[in-house]
Amino acid sequence: MISDLEKIYSVSANNMKRSVIRELLKLTAEPDIISFAGGLPAPASFPKDEIREVMLEVMDKEPDFVLQYGTTEGDSLLRKRLVEHQYRTVEGMDITEENLIITTASQQALDLIGKIFINWGDKIIVGLPSYLGGLSAFRNYGADMVGIELDEHGMRSDLLEKTLSEMKAKNEKPKFIYVIPDFQNPTGITMPEYRRKEILDLARKFDVLIIEDSPYRELRFEGESQKTIYSMDNTGQVVMLGTFSKILCPGFRIGWVIAHKEIINKIVMAKQATDLCTSPFTQRIAARYLQKGFMESRIQLNVDLYRSKLDLMISSFEKYMPDGVSWVKPEGGLFLFLTLPEHIDTQEMFMRAVEKKVAYVIGTAFYANGMGKNTMRINFSYSDIDKIEEGVKRLSEVIKEELAK
Amino acid sequence: MISDLEKIYSVSANNMKRSVIRELLKLTAEPDIISFAGGLPAPASFPKDEIREVMLEVMDKEPDFVLQYGTTEGDSLLRKRLVEHQYRTVEGMDITEENLIITTASQQALDLIGKIFINWGDKIIVGLPSYLGGLSAFRNYGADMVGIELDEHGMRSDLLEKTLSEMKAKNEKPKFIYVIPDFQNPTGITMPEYRRKEILDLARKFDVLIIEDSPYRELRFEGESQKTIYSMDNTGQVVMLGTFSKILCPGFRIGWVIAHKEIINKIVMAKQATDLCTSPFTQRIAARYLQKGFMESRIQLNVDLYRSKLDLMISSFEKYMPDGVSWVKPEGGLFLFLTLPEHIDTQEMFMRAVEKKVAYVIGTAFYANGMGKNTMRINFSYSDIDKIEEGVKRLSEVIKEELAK
Repeated sequence: MISDLEKIYSVSANNMKRSVIRELLKLTAEPDIISFAGGLPAPASFPKDEIREVMLEVMDKEPDFVLQYGTTEGDSLLRKRLVEHQYRTVEGMDITEENLIITTASQQALDLIGKIFINWGDKIIVGLPSYLGGLSAFRNYGADMVGIELDEHGMRSDLLEKTLSEMKAKNEKPKFIYVIPDFQNPTGITMPEYRRKEILDLARKFDVLIIEDSPYRELRFEGESQKTIYSMDNTGQVVMLGTFSKILCPGFRIGWVIAHKEIINKIVMAKQATDLCTSPFTQRIAARYLQKGFMESRIQLNVDLYRSKLDLMISSFEKYMPDGVSWVKPEGGLFLFLTLPEHIDTQEMFMRAVEKKVAYVIGTAFYANGMGKNTMRINFSYSDIDKIEEGVKRLSEVIKEELAK
Repeated sequence: MISDLEKIYSVSANNMKRSVIRELLKLTAEPDIISFAGGLPAPASFPKDEIREVMLEVMDKEPDFVLQYGTTEGDSLLRKRLVEHQYRTVEGMDITEENLIITTASQQALDLIGKIFINWGDKIIVGLPSYLGGLSAFRNYGADMVGIELDEHGMRSDLLEKTLSEMKAKNEKPKFIYVIPDFQNPTGITMPEYRRKEILDLARKFDVLIIEDSPYRELRFEGESQKTIYSMDNTGQVVMLGTFSKILCPGFRIGWVIAHKEIINKIVMAKQATDLCTSPFTQRIAARYLQKGFMESRIQLNVDLYRSKLDLMISSFEKYMPDGVSWVKPEGGLFLFLTLPEHIDTQEMFMRAVEKKVAYVIGTAFYANGMGKNTMRINFSYSDIDKIEEGVKRLSEVIKEELAK
């Protein structure tokens, strides 16, 4: 073995942290723990019979195609279908197939965006809090993350304007603004259209790209769908990310980026050297699944499933949670956020929760600036429905014990 | 759209080139072209019936597992199987599951190795010529590639020693030495054990890691298997890369890295933010496929198939190629390398070859230093057996015309 292994890692590698979620999740693997950590879809949401049917068809009719290498841009059938049926028709987005590349799920999309835009020390703007996987991907390219607090309508446009103005005064410009407008991870907050418009106007005024990450968009339980920021712009100022991980299954590892074709070109070049192509096998199964019209009814089933889980979780909160614990009921997605009295540190409390056989993700993991010590992310999609009330009860007991200290 | 898109890309993105192979391949998509370019396995090599059988079993018995997120390290069944049956037993490598991570095919392994080791401007050592996808992956992290010429036994140890000594005198050390010992891409050359030992001894003497990329190792048509450099070391000085792309199918996107567990730890962290996990669906199908013992007989079938294609190609070369064109018959793999008289530029000749309906990859694409203008890579695995002689004939005519100029 070489003598100086510890010294030869890249600056990026030395900067990497093992995901806090991941390390904490290891503690929650025992079957008697009710885990509200993680961000897994419910196994019951997977369309097993339909996937099995499509898979057999694909293996019988086009095995040589699906088992071979594919193009870096992705399966043309899948791209066409997404562009025409989903984004042009449903979302009113002015795009063609040149504006869409398939990625190895949206985590790869975040990594490739980091790769093509971020030089070490470059500033980017992120929500406080924001998706941990996005923060990690950007951090590995050396992003200097400037956090903007959220209110109940998402990223605060007043603070965003202030920050962009201050940066401009210093002749600085962030590489992009990273937002998750629909049922944000971790807060569950959805930006109303007026706020999306404000963010877009600021991006235009200050000449900055927006990264619109939207993995949960189709999982709306109530209220009106809000236009995508991409569709409010349609000029290429916005880069939008989508995925099948939450509406079909994560196991296929399929996501996509929609962007100006010059940006897609750069992502193609980056992806080529990163994993050559996403599995043509899982891509073609997904494409045929969409063609058969299975997606719409399945999404409806899953929306009903997750709505009932969320309703039960909220009613359990109301029943068990002590005063001083607050939450906002999300209109969709997989997550909600609990805010505890300020003196409670959810990381410090975590081991006691695990002892009581319940788990969550500590809020600080989502804050680029280390805030959020008294918050936690709660996932409501994964736990069995008969475990939710009991899990909330256990969690409330841990919190009550903390409050009594 | 923002006003300065061209200016906001990262240094890495500005440095990226569209793959030469890829651009040239676009010209070869017409069905009447006989293409010796690309590096695709033959569709006839895919075990379609066996995959179909295993896939159905997996979907019937463990759908919730395969459709869900998986761990970043990879499917434990697959890792265990590879470690115990392949590497410990067959290859005599002293490893446990902690030494192996599954990647989204070996291109991702190359990317992650770049990510954890290379800072902008770091030197690495590569063969002249060497696998284009490796060069691209490392280039995107800013590697300064120091090329070492090959002879008929692979990377020249005398030149390697000279280079390492010169670097040492300047207080420089490369991050690693990148080699492809078995049926190298693009030359088809295999390093005999004595040469592997020399390279390893130099790596030890100069305290440098070796990256041993071995995607074709199992596809040996003749001669004796040569020990892996990893097994000649077994201390962690070597990082070895493997893949199912050439022995099962590329469409599953499954590869792996074998390394010291500290290096695997870093790769796990890097992969987490890169694509979270490789498809648990394709991983589990591969694991069950191995468990059923399908792999060994399939490899034998494919070795027979590729050997017959190679034999036909070599006899066609002998029949048609003019004096001054030389090649070395490989003992396995997918590729061989043609060297033409020095004044012929294969890039300049390429369009005339396409007009004659035959294609290859220009040699310069594989040379980090721009050499190899009179060389080309020829793939013999993909073309139908009834096209090989005709393709060689066409290629020989193009070369003869160049010689007659």
